[in-house]
Amino acid sequence: MHREIFYAAPENVKKEYLYLFGEEVHHLRRVLRKKEGDIVWAVDGIGASYEVELINITDQKAECRILKTTKMAGEPEAEVTLALGMLKGERFDIAVEKATEIGVRRIVPFISENSTAHATHAKISRWRRKSLSAMKQSTRSILPEITETKKFSDLFKMECESEYRFIAHQSDVSRILDIRNSPSSNTAKSVFVIVGPEGGFSEGEVAEAVNHGYIPIALGKRRLRSETAAIVITTLILFQLGEIK
Amino acid sequence: MHREIFYAAPENVKKEYLYLFGEEVHHLRRVLRKKEGDIVWAVDGIGASYEVELINITDQKAECRILKTTKMAGEPEAEVTLALGMLKGERFDIAVEKATEIGVRRIVPFISENSTAHATHAKISRWRRKSLSAMKQSTRSILPEITETKKFSDLFKMECESEYRFIAHQSDVSRILDIRNSPSSNTAKSVFVIVGPEGGFSEGEVAEAVNHGYIPIALGKRRLRSETAAIVITTLILFQLGEIK
Repeated sequence: MHREIFYAAPENVKKEYLYLFGEEVHHLRRVLRKKEGDIVWAVDGIGASYEVELINITDQKAECRILKTTKMAGEPEAEVTLALGMLKGERFDIAVEKATEIGVRRIVPFISENSTAHATHAKISRWRRKSLSAMKQSTRSILPEITETKKFSDLFKMECESEYRFIAHQSDVSRILDIRNSPSSNTAKSVFVIVGPEGGFSEGEVAEAVNHGYIPIALGKRRLRSETAAIVITTLILFQLGEIK
Repeated sequence: MHREIFYAAPENVKKEYLYLFGEEVHHLRRVLRKKEGDIVWAVDGIGASYEVELINITDQKAECRILKTTKMAGEPEAEVTLALGMLKGERFDIAVEKATEIGVRRIVPFISENSTAHATHAKISRWRRKSLSAMKQSTRSILPEITETKKFSDLFKMECESEYRFIAHQSDVSRILDIRNSPSSNTAKSVFVIVGPEGGFSEGEVAEAVNHGYIPIALGKRRLRSETAAIVITTLILFQLGEIK
């Protein structure tokens, strides 16, 4: 019913041909029963989508002739970075999957004062697989970057270019998210949003973010879990930038 | 750090006292190590929250004296019903949890032409437990109703009172969600939104909904999973009604 999309890493796209490997080939051949001559779709994760014809399939590799190339299909113009405090169990996985579908460009896991979970290489690898799968499923063409885990203070070293900077935090000075009434110009398209771990932020952390130009944003009187807050705020940001319509 | 909230079914609230049973008592006594004289918080799921003093705890039952009663704490004024096509695996569970946190009042699982999953009593019981847990966690005071599974056509029999009726469906006639520019008055606070199963709706189903006054709503060019679409559209509805601020 829905178009299935396969991932070809950029180094496996060569002029008029591209090559699929591993699980992609397994799925193509054993699950979908595709054969030479069939037309399928592929994406390179850095902005290009391809309509391709299967030329030669073995158990290891599928050679495909590129029939048509489309740039930036499914991509929002806005570049949204979601920095999200480490979460226990599968909650970070849910945030990665949903934020990818909704359209974020980069996800930064971080550790802060109230963090109780730690990132491991295994977790980061798993999130990258989740994001890859969500990119294909949602028909995006850019694979969101999932960085290594940062310390909270290091978030401000990595990012000082974004026109919009938000931190999800309920307090007396928090505002409702309203990008359209922000002072930045309408052409501004870079957003950095920080969502805390389950325990939230310390007052010192919020002050540090405010000092770096971040606006505290309230998400209502219901206490949202961290991954829910991440999904809600990225939805509202992309909607207000005209990217969900 | 966060206030823990316990559930007392309405029949266990009696004038100045309320009674906790089962898992609630286990959690209170064995996990949180609460004792007679301690102050805790309870909710009845039909709109009342209580600050209570523990009077007597046994393994089976906690007797609590009500110190303070608050009505409709954490509740949006808007009454949002989410009708969601049955989904496989844990995807419906995620939608139930998140929609409860965001603030829906009722969830209606349904079967339609492209449904591939079926509801069982075990699943509905599990969703009700998920919703109860999310109600407590999010500090709401109303437990969302999760109905028995309906057929798609029966959705229109159960509901003809809502001022706003939306169906998530991408097509040439779909609109961007914009409640503030809808013809209904600003005091209108009842919303019914339908989100399809993974395979989406047939054209006939969309036509049936449109005949019943439902407006097809586009959620952008990225293909959202059903549970993501449910979370995104309920977020946008509650935000636009001024309930996330």
